[in-house]
Amino acid sequence: MTNLQIPAPDVMQVAYVGNASIDVRESAPQAPAPDEVQIRVACVGLCGTDLHIVHGAMDARVSSPLVFGHEMSGTIERLGADVQGWTVGDRVTVMPLAWDGTCPACLAGHQHICQNLDFIGIDSPGALQTLWNVPELTLVALPEGLSLDVAALVEPTAVAVHDVRRGEVSPGDHVVVLGGGPIGVLIATVARHAGAAVAIAEPDPRRRQQIEQLGHLAFDPGTTDEVAWVTEWTSGVGADVVFEVSGAASAVMAATGVAKVRGTVVVVAIHPVPRLFDLKQVFWRELRILGARVYERADFIKASALLADGVVPSQLLVSTTVRMTDVAAAFDDLAHGRAMKILVDVAGGIEEEA
Amino acid sequence: MTNLQIPAPDVMQVAYVGNASIDVRESAPQAPAPDEVQIRVACVGLCGTDLHIVHGAMDARVSSPLVFGHEMSGTIERLGADVQGWTVGDRVTVMPLAWDGTCPACLAGHQHICQNLDFIGIDSPGALQTLWNVPELTLVALPEGLSLDVAALVEPTAVAVHDVRRGEVSPGDHVVVLGGGPIGVLIATVARHAGAAVAIAEPDPRRRQQIEQLGHLAFDPGTTDEVAWVTEWTSGVGADVVFEVSGAASAVMAATGVAKVRGTVVVVAIHPVPRLFDLKQVFWRELRILGARVYERADFIKASALLADGVVPSQLLVSTTVRMTDVAAAFDDLAHGRAMKILVDVAGGIEEEA
Repeated sequence: MTNLQIPAPDVMQVAYVGNASIDVRESAPQAPAPDEVQIRVACVGLCGTDLHIVHGAMDARVSSPLVFGHEMSGTIERLGADVQGWTVGDRVTVMPLAWDGTCPACLAGHQHICQNLDFIGIDSPGALQTLWNVPELTLVALPEGLSLDVAALVEPTAVAVHDVRRGEVSPGDHVVVLGGGPIGVLIATVARHAGAAVAIAEPDPRRRQQIEQLGHLAFDPGTTDEVAWVTEWTSGVGADVVFEVSGAASAVMAATGVAKVRGTVVVVAIHPVPRLFDLKQVFWRELRILGARVYERADFIKASALLADGVVPSQLLVSTTVRMTDVAAAFDDLAHGRAMKILVDVAGGIEEEA
Repeated sequence: MTNLQIPAPDVMQVAYVGNASIDVRESAPQAPAPDEVQIRVACVGLCGTDLHIVHGAMDARVSSPLVFGHEMSGTIERLGADVQGWTVGDRVTVMPLAWDGTCPACLAGHQHICQNLDFIGIDSPGALQTLWNVPELTLVALPEGLSLDVAALVEPTAVAVHDVRRGEVSPGDHVVVLGGGPIGVLIATVARHAGAAVAIAEPDPRRRQQIEQLGHLAFDPGTTDEVAWVTEWTSGVGADVVFEVSGAASAVMAATGVAKVRGTVVVVAIHPVPRLFDLKQVFWRELRILGARVYERADFIKASALLADGVVPSQLLVSTTVRMTDVAAAFDDLAHGRAMKILVDVAGGIEEEA
C-alpha cells in the first residue's frame, strides 16, 4: 500500500479587511490547539454587529483582517489532543464567549460579562470560514431534529432567551418591544412563549407586516401616541416589561413612559452615546431598568430547544440564504432594510439537507 | 356646678401663600372627622421639598394657602368618632401618604406609590400647625425612649430605610452615595448599619466636614476622578450599590461609571428634566437601575427603631431648632447651605423635654 499525501484543501474565509471592505480569500488550514476543536462550518447568520464591523464603525475595537461571524452551526471535523467527551461528526453550535475567569465579574459568577471578555468573531477570528478552530468550552451540542441551517439561529435566540429571563417575564404580562428587527422579533416570540401578550413598536412598514404575519401586534412609533396606545392596551396599567431593542433616542424616552408602576425596562440595544432619559419617571413609578448583554450556557440550551420544538418560526425569520461570495451584497440588503435575517451557506450543502 | 364654656384657643399655622412667600397665621380649630385624629404637633423638620414649595417651584402642584410640613412628631389630642385602638396622649408620628386603594399600583400592592397619591403636606394640609387633623391610618406609634424632637426625623429616616432596602444593600457591600445632604447622610448611616462600607460624594466642604464627623468617607466630586477613586477603594471591583441623591446631571453620569458589573444604582433624587444617561454602560455591565420613592409602613417602624436605638446620630444631623415665627429665616439658611436639618419647635416645649 502506498501512503499518498493528499494536500489539505485551503480554508475559504470571509474577512473584514479594514476601510469598510470585506474580502473572500483562501487560507491554509491550522490544526486545533490541544484544548480546541476544528469545526466544519455549515451555516452562519449575519448580525447587526457584523454590519457595524464591515461598515468600519468598530475599527477602534477590531483588528483587521478579521474573519467575523458568530451565529453558526457545523460539525466537528477534528479534536485537539486534550479534548474529551466530543466525537468527530458531532453537530454543534458555539457560544462565542471566552472569559478570563479571574476578573471580579467572573469571580462573582458573571463570566458572560467578564471585564476582559473575548467575543469570538469580534475580538478574535469568527465563523465565516469553512474550517474554524474554537475552544472546546464554547461548544454546545445540537438537539436531534434541529437542522444545521435553523441551528444558525441558536445564538440570536439565546440573546432573546437571556433578555426575557433577565426581564422576568411572567404569564399574563403585557410586554412592549421597541424595535422589530430580528432580536426584537425573537424577544417577542420567546416572551409570548413565556405566556405574555406582546406588542412591537417598529417604524418600517415592511417589517410591521412580517411581525403581524408572525402573529404579534405591531404599531408605528412614528405616528402612534405610544403612552396612550399602551395605556389603552393594558387597561390603564402600563406595560409590565419593556424591551429597548431599537437603539433610537426616541425609544429611550418612550420606554419609561409606557412602563407600569414598578415595571421593568430591559436595555438590549447598544446606545453608543449617552441618551436623554426620564429619571423622574424612574423615581416616580419606582421603575427597574436592567441591562442585558449576550447570554449564558443555559440560554443557549433553551434556545436550541425552542428552535428544535418549532417555537421560533425560523422559516419566517430567515429572508434568504446566500453563498460566501455573496456576503457583500447581503450586507447591502441588510443595511437598506430589505431583509430580516440572512444566512450564509458556508458548507454549500444547506439545500440538500433541508 | 356651673358648666363654663372656655373658647378653644386658635391654631397657629405656617402656610405657603403663593408668590414664594410664607405667612404665620391663626386659624379656628377644626374637629377631626370620624376617621381622623387631632394631633397636638410637637416638632416639624424642614425638608428640601418644603424649600421647593416656599420658593414657588411647585406652584403647578400645590394650591395656596398651603400649610406644609410632613416630618413631624406629636401627641394625640382628640379622637374622631370611629377611631379605635388609640388613646389621647399617645405619642405618634404620621406617614403622610393617602392612597386611593383602587388604582393599578394599589391593587398590585404598591399603595405607597399610588397613581393618585395624596402626599399630605404637599397635596393636602401639613404639619406646621399646633393642631393637625390626619387620617387614623397614617398614625405610627413612637417607641418608648424616642423623644419628640428626635422623632421628627422618623420620616426622612424612613426614606433612607426604604432606599437601602430597595437597593438590597448587604453586609460587606461597598456603597457610594452621590450627594451629602440630610437624605444622603441618612442613607449612608442606614447602609453602614446594614454592614456596608460607605463613601459620600459631596461638593460642599462644610458638609464634607460634617460627613466625616459622622464617620463616613467623603470626597469632592468636583475635583476627584470618581471612577478612579471608587475603583481603587473597591480593589478594582466597583461599587455594589450607588445612591443618586444629588439631583445633579454630572452625578447621573458618575453613577453608571462607578457601579460594578451587575451593580445597582438607586435613583432617589428628583430630576425634573431628562438627563443624559450612559445606557451603554447599563447594557455593558448589566447594571440595575431602581427608582425609590417615599416609604412603606415597615420603613417607618424600622426608622423609629433606628432612631430610638441611637443608630442615627440625630444630634449631629440637626443643625438648629427654631420657632414657627423663624421659619422664613430657617429656609434662608437651608437655601444657602448653612444648615443640614432644621427643626421647628411647634409646641414650644422641646427644650423642657430635652
